[in-house]
Amino acid sequence: MCEQREPMAIESVQIADDFWRHWREVNREKTIEYQYQQLQESGTLENFRRASAGEKGGHNGMWFQDSDAYKWIEAASYVLANHHDPELDRRVDNVIDLIAAAQSADGYLNTYFALEEPEKRWTNLNMLHELYCAGHLIEAAVAHYRATGTETLLDVAIDFADHIDRIFGDEVEGVPGHQEIELALMKLAEVTDEPRYRDLARYFVDLRGHDDRLAWEFENIEQIAGYDPEDSDDGIAGQAAGVFLEDGSYNGSYAQAHAPLREQEAVEGHSVRAMYYFAGATDIAAETGDDDLLQHLDLLWRNMTEKRMYVTGGIGSQHAGERFTTDYDLPNETAYAETCAAIGSIFWNQRLFEETGEAKYADLIERQLYNAMLVGMSLDGTEFFYDNVLESDGDHDREGWFECACCPPNIARLLASLEQYLYAVDDDGLYVNQYVSGTARPTIDGTTATLTQTADFPWEGTVEIDVEAMEATDFAIRLRVPEWCTEVTVSVNGNPIAVDAEAGYVTIERIWDDDRITAEFEMDVQVLEAHPNVEADIGRVALQRGPLVYCLEGVDNERPLYQYAIDPETDFEVTHHEELLDGVVTLEGTATVPSKDDWDGELYRSADETDETTAPITAVPYYAWNNRGPNPMRVWIRER
Amino acid sequence: MCEQREPMAIESVQIADDFWRHWREVNREKTIEYQYQQLQESGTLENFRRASAGEKGGHNGMWFQDSDAYKWIEAASYVLANHHDPELDRRVDNVIDLIAAAQSADGYLNTYFALEEPEKRWTNLNMLHELYCAGHLIEAAVAHYRATGTETLLDVAIDFADHIDRIFGDEVEGVPGHQEIELALMKLAEVTDEPRYRDLARYFVDLRGHDDRLAWEFENIEQIAGYDPEDSDDGIAGQAAGVFLEDGSYNGSYAQAHAPLREQEAVEGHSVRAMYYFAGATDIAAETGDDDLLQHLDLLWRNMTEKRMYVTGGIGSQHAGERFTTDYDLPNETAYAETCAAIGSIFWNQRLFEETGEAKYADLIERQLYNAMLVGMSLDGTEFFYDNVLESDGDHDREGWFECACCPPNIARLLASLEQYLYAVDDDGLYVNQYVSGTARPTIDGTTATLTQTADFPWEGTVEIDVEAMEATDFAIRLRVPEWCTEVTVSVNGNPIAVDAEAGYVTIERIWDDDRITAEFEMDVQVLEAHPNVEADIGRVALQRGPLVYCLEGVDNERPLYQYAIDPETDFEVTHHEELLDGVVTLEGTATVPSKDDWDGELYRSADETDETTAPITAVPYYAWNNRGPNPMRVWIRER
Repeated sequence: MCEQREPMAIESVQIADDFWRHWREVNREKTIEYQYQQLQESGTLENFRRASAGEKGGHNGMWFQDSDAYKWIEAASYVLANHHDPELDRRVDNVIDLIAAAQSADGYLNTYFALEEPEKRWTNLNMLHELYCAGHLIEAAVAHYRATGTETLLDVAIDFADHIDRIFGDEVEGVPGHQEIELALMKLAEVTDEPRYRDLARYFVDLRGHDDRLAWEFENIEQIAGYDPEDSDDGIAGQAAGVFLEDGSYNGSYAQAHAPLREQEAVEGHSVRAMYYFAGATDIAAETGDDDLLQHLDLLWRNMTEKRMYVTGGIGSQHAGERFTTDYDLPNETAYAETCAAIGSIFWNQRLFEETGEAKYADLIERQLYNAMLVGMSLDGTEFFYDNVLESDGDHDREGWFECACCPPNIARLLASLEQYLYAVDDDGLYVNQYVSGTARPTIDGTTATLTQTADFPWEGTVEIDVEAMEATDFAIRLRVPEWCTEVTVSVNGNPIAVDAEAGYVTIERIWDDDRITAEFEMDVQVLEAHPNVEADIGRVALQRGPLVYCLEGVDNERPLYQYAIDPETDFEVTHHEELLDGVVTLEGTATVPSKDDWDGELYRSADETDETTAPITAVPYYAWNNRGPNPMRVWIRER
Repeated sequence: MCEQREPMAIESVQIADDFWRHWREVNREKTIEYQYQQLQESGTLENFRRASAGEKGGHNGMWFQDSDAYKWIEAASYVLANHHDPELDRRVDNVIDLIAAAQSADGYLNTYFALEEPEKRWTNLNMLHELYCAGHLIEAAVAHYRATGTETLLDVAIDFADHIDRIFGDEVEGVPGHQEIELALMKLAEVTDEPRYRDLARYFVDLRGHDDRLAWEFENIEQIAGYDPEDSDDGIAGQAAGVFLEDGSYNGSYAQAHAPLREQEAVEGHSVRAMYYFAGATDIAAETGDDDLLQHLDLLWRNMTEKRMYVTGGIGSQHAGERFTTDYDLPNETAYAETCAAIGSIFWNQRLFEETGEAKYADLIERQLYNAMLVGMSLDGTEFFYDNVLESDGDHDREGWFECACCPPNIARLLASLEQYLYAVDDDGLYVNQYVSGTARPTIDGTTATLTQTADFPWEGTVEIDVEAMEATDFAIRLRVPEWCTEVTVSVNGNPIAVDAEAGYVTIERIWDDDRITAEFEMDVQVLEAHPNVEADIGRVALQRGPLVYCLEGVDNERPLYQYAIDPETDFEVTHHEELLDGVVTLEGTATVPSKDDWDGELYRSADETDETTAPITAVPYYAWNNRGPNPMRVWIRER
């Protein structure tokens, strides 16, 4: 890979962080276990068993159900990279055996097609997700190989990738309806050092928006896989077609195929597809040194972050089509903000950072990690939000599982690979992107250093990093100054360092030997407003402290939440509660509420009679809401 | 009838009013003509023809389509009461002939049953609306008889009413799923002086909430009319059952049958049903001198007006079930506020006024006439709102007709009978309830007087009434002081009268001969707020001047409407525009809007950077919106 900055391997980073330990333990001990049970109960594993036995019909679950197993293996492999767990190791091997047995002699692998429509491979690229599942297989295989050194699944992935490479661009011309294989092939190319996979990834990235294959499939739906004339909805193909078509015609935007990438001026369509696509495209830009493409991707990034993103980092505001809509269309009560889309954005931003070294991408990763992603899972790791509203009257509640179970395993694989997002290395030094306690052992300019970071994010802004170099070496350590931080002080061995916070990073270049960096990132309570074109947020403010967006929950506040109005000048008391919500910092302040005393059976009256009073409010971190039962919640509070 | 106050017959009042002339001319010349064409095009008249010819099957339109014809006759008859129109007269007679020919020998009349399920009469009281259609037949017959003196339709109605009287309480025990026949039977009793019809009305009013017939029908849906096992929705009965059932079980509230009337503590269920029911029940209370019932009806009225009514007078806030929901649940963008429900409320309030003489009921009639009712029809009389939102992003538009075409003929019959709502007479005098130019010839204490009213409502608050008595007579004239009026002056022949505005009426008792009353009702612009429990209106204000609620329309205002914020102290310029919207008074003022100058690609930023600027706003009467194409609208504007 030609990226300028390399993330660190999972094994080189040990996380020992009070905040994240909880989430990662829950993920290892409950979520991944729970998800394995779901693979069994939903028939996902049975699909592989039956396909390998040559059975026909009776495929269980969604037509892309295979990907659940692949994402589970990927998450479990990340765990295995840093944790000795023979039982999990054995369980993963057993699932790999099932998968390998289901692979056809020619390398093809997909249980839906094996069981239901073996003769219709590669006829429905739009909707039947063969390439999407292949991508997750490849990602799982790479993760498993990197974690264990075992090539069992990697061989399966290589055989399938080779099969795809033989078919596409030759027998079949077209791109997947759901991107994923692009970024996966780039990973495969890296571990195998095989440029064919890069070329294949590039083929998929470059062809999108240039061909009419996807449109052709809609026009010839009777000929493609998934079509069932006996089903009143015309089967999977007919149902799926519904989300692609707008007013009955196909314009491609749902799958970012409405125009060539370089001609797209805004982030459009299904938000997860968009993120995976842009991540793959960023890999291609990095690989080929294509600065124009990279700049165009940044243009799309700016459209997303400046016009189409919730304050939580959630993206894709509309339920119908799980998609981006129009600039500033960010409704709160009906926010879709799919958990997977935020995770996809983290993948994309990590690649943008690696290629550019710009702090803004790591800033967004931080925002999405602590807010848009984390809210997707309950504190106990067994219930999930697929869509993440920013306001609820109390009827929004996490669920145990979903028929389309993409989000829970996505959270699992992100949490299990959090190590990758904390540091990065380039030729002349080290980036510290996320403040998470633990140790890292980067190799810089041939020297291995040990960094021991002690932080109490997201609650306190003090960070200590002990740097111990194997031998004294001159290199740079770059500390990200979070976008929310207005005041930062940094010292090395007690000696203050000049800080230019605007630069995104505080760069400390020196001969490192055995030194201590101390940084203080001021965590003020910030009262935020949205751009005036955001109708949903007009006349409202949101609270943020450090990386955390806050919300009001009904259970903490006496009045209906809509009655509270906040003065932006309010002083909030910042209090750590050890017992509350597994330990959180709350914001407590005084808000204005309408007086009810002088309403005497009126429903409407002259506004000059308004009488206000004050009432205490308590805000909790947004990620932690809905862990005390369903109850009203709101992020955007009326401004006084 | 035992009511304390009697409305005046249509023929005794001549309206010559600049404002209402437009609406009533449009109604006569376009709406009623247009609706007649719809009766033909929709197959409504064809249903009668085919039923009288003994044909079977092929009923056109909704199963209660007959009522469209009846409501059209009723409206046309009101027109004929004051307008010589031989062509309309002949057309009405022809429709009456069709109807009469379709009546069975035993008096029964319903084309759906005649054509589709003749053997299933009176088996589905809940959903098939035989009694509802009968009620509209009776109302049409009474109106036609009163207008023309002709008994052709009255005879049909009497025969059907007698048939119903024979069946109900004897062969069948039960109440209609949609009230209407109750108030109709009370009118029939009045014109025929036949107490059996009053008893039958009372039977229907009293039985509701006491019997389990409606629940029985749901449990035995296979046995009742409208059930079609071959239809995937189980036919009309199955479809209709959906709106009655909540979570699969029947509690009766949709049709106000969840409890006996005297045990109902709030207005519940389908709002049109509720209004027709309470109107009929008020008639019964008046007839029987039942003060307890009357007081209970006022309790329900207070629940409605104090907790469940839009500022426009619209009621029934929820689309699903076209119903009342819970206290203070008054969403603006999804407001249902069915036009028919406001009209039903006017019917009910007229009866409450007649029985009590309280101005508050006439106040509500005024509010609903000028706002909730009038908004239901376009200025040209050919397009209609069924549901009336108080806020739109521009996608709400009047339509030419509806499959369920209840609202347009309801507007038509109300506009054509507006005369009835202006004045009322009791033993010692006259009530002037609505300020509408024209003449009235009441007979009071044996003497006929001629009142000539000159007003310019709803634009100006000056009213002149010339009173000319046949012979000088001592009686009272009571002028309603509108609830929105904070300052009123009244004089007779130039001599000021002491006014107690709180009393609801200014009562002038004297010997009237040839005198002039001059009243001045101050029409200030009122900036209203809603009770703090109305979530939809919190932090917002509405504008009202005189009886008119105002709104912002996108076409008049440069910024998106949500960006405007109004200070309640704002001085509005009140300007009459002769050409705009067929002549309206606009309110023009200065609002605060967020500045966009200093937003530099940010989506969220610290709220203390907020920079505001001012912008002009123009508000137009709510009834007149959406007459310049679909465009954004909002009644509740952010408060600064």
